[in-house]
Amino acid sequence: MLVASRNAKKLNELRRVLTESGIEGLTVVGLDEVQAFDETPETGATFEANAVVKAVDGAAATGLACVADDSGIEVDALNGMPGVLSARWSGVHGNDSANTQLLLAQLGDVPDERRGAKFVSACAFAIPGGEPIVVRGEWPGTIAHEPRGDGGFGYDPIFVPESETRSAAELSPSEKDAASHRGRALRLLVAALSDYAAGR
Amino acid sequence: MLVASRNAKKLNELRRVLTESGIEGLTVVGLDEVQAFDETPETGATFEANAVVKAVDGAAATGLACVADDSGIEVDALNGMPGVLSARWSGVHGNDSANTQLLLAQLGDVPDERRGAKFVSACAFAIPGGEPIVVRGEWPGTIAHEPRGDGGFGYDPIFVPESETRSAAELSPSEKDAASHRGRALRLLVAALSDYAAGR
Repeated sequence: MLVASRNAKKLNELRRVLTESGIEGLTVVGLDEVQAFDETPETGATFEANAVVKAVDGAAATGLACVADDSGIEVDALNGMPGVLSARWSGVHGNDSANTQLLLAQLGDVPDERRGAKFVSACAFAIPGGEPIVVRGEWPGTIAHEPRGDGGFGYDPIFVPESETRSAAELSPSEKDAASHRGRALRLLVAALSDYAAGR
Repeated sequence: MLVASRNAKKLNELRRVLTESGIEGLTVVGLDEVQAFDETPETGATFEANAVVKAVDGAAATGLACVADDSGIEVDALNGMPGVLSARWSGVHGNDSANTQLLLAQLGDVPDERRGAKFVSACAFAIPGGEPIVVRGEWPGTIAHEPRGDGGFGYDPIFVPESETRSAAELSPSEKDAASHRGRALRLLVAALSDYAAGR
C-alpha cells in the first residue's frame, strides 16, 4: 500500500497506525520509494478534497492501493484558519518553526478563553480505478503561549489537547496515536482497508 | 475633535473626510497632539468593539469629542481573516510590507475565483460621559497577485476594488475616499457629528 506523503514524520505516524491496525500482509511504502509521478498541488478548499486527490493520483500512478492524509489546525480566533494552509501559513511550505512562531505572534493579544483550536485530519483511500473513500478525525484543544516538547511535528509543540496539560509534542508516540486527529481518522479507515486486503 | 490614531496615513484619511464633511468650526487633532494617556490595547474580537474602546478612552482622557476607526481586510479564502488582526498579521504590528507579502504568500495557490475580499472599517464617535455610537463601512474587491501603486497604506497595493482594474493604492486620494470602507463609514458618522457640533 502506498502512503502518499513525503513528510517523513507524518509518514511515520501513518505507517505506525496502519501497521498496528491488524491488517495482514500489509507493506507500507512512501512516495519516495516509488517511481516519481506528477503530483497534483494541494490547492483544494477542504482537507477532504486534497486527501482524495492525493490518494486517487497515487493509486492511478502506481497501481497500488493508496492512503493519503491532508491535515492541519483550525484556530477559533482565526475563524478556523490556518486550516488547509497550515503547512504554508508563514508563506514557506513545511517550515514548522516559522509556522508555529507566526501563529503564536498572531495570537499574542488573544486571551486564554479565546485560544480554542482543533487538529483535523482527512484520510482518503483509493484503489486504481475505484471510488475513493474519505474520513475525518478531529482533536480538540487550545493554543499554548509558547512551544513545548520535541515529539511530533507541525503545530504539536503549541497545541495542548483537551483534558491534557502537556503539549502534543510532549506525548509519547502511542499516546499521540491513541488521541490524535490522524489516529482517529486512520482507525475509521481500517474497516475499509481490511475489506480491501481481504479481497472483499 | 480628537481622532484617536497614531497612524499618520490613517489620520490623514480621517482628517480629509471629516474636514470635507461640512461641519463648521471643526478642528481635528491626532493622538500625538494631546497629552499622553494609557491607551487600551486593541484586543477585541470585532472591529466595532475596538473602535468603541478607542473612542471612549480618547474622549474620557482628553475631554474632547473623539472619533476612532478600527479597520482591516477580510479575505474569503482565509475565512474572513486577517480581520481584526490585519495590522499584526505577520506577527509585527504595523509592518505593511511584511503583512502584504505574507498574505500574498498564503494565497499563492489560491485561484482567482477564490480571491474575494473586503475592507471593513468600524468608526466610533464618543463624547466624554456620553453613549458612543459606531457604524461600519465595507469595500468589496479581490486580492491581486502582486502589489501595485504607491498611494494609500496597509493592504491597499494588493486590493483591487470591485469594478476596478487598479489597486486601491493606484487610486487618487479623492477616488479612495469616495469608495473606501473608511469613507463610507465616516459619511455615516457625519450626521451624528453634525448634531454634536451644532449642540443638538
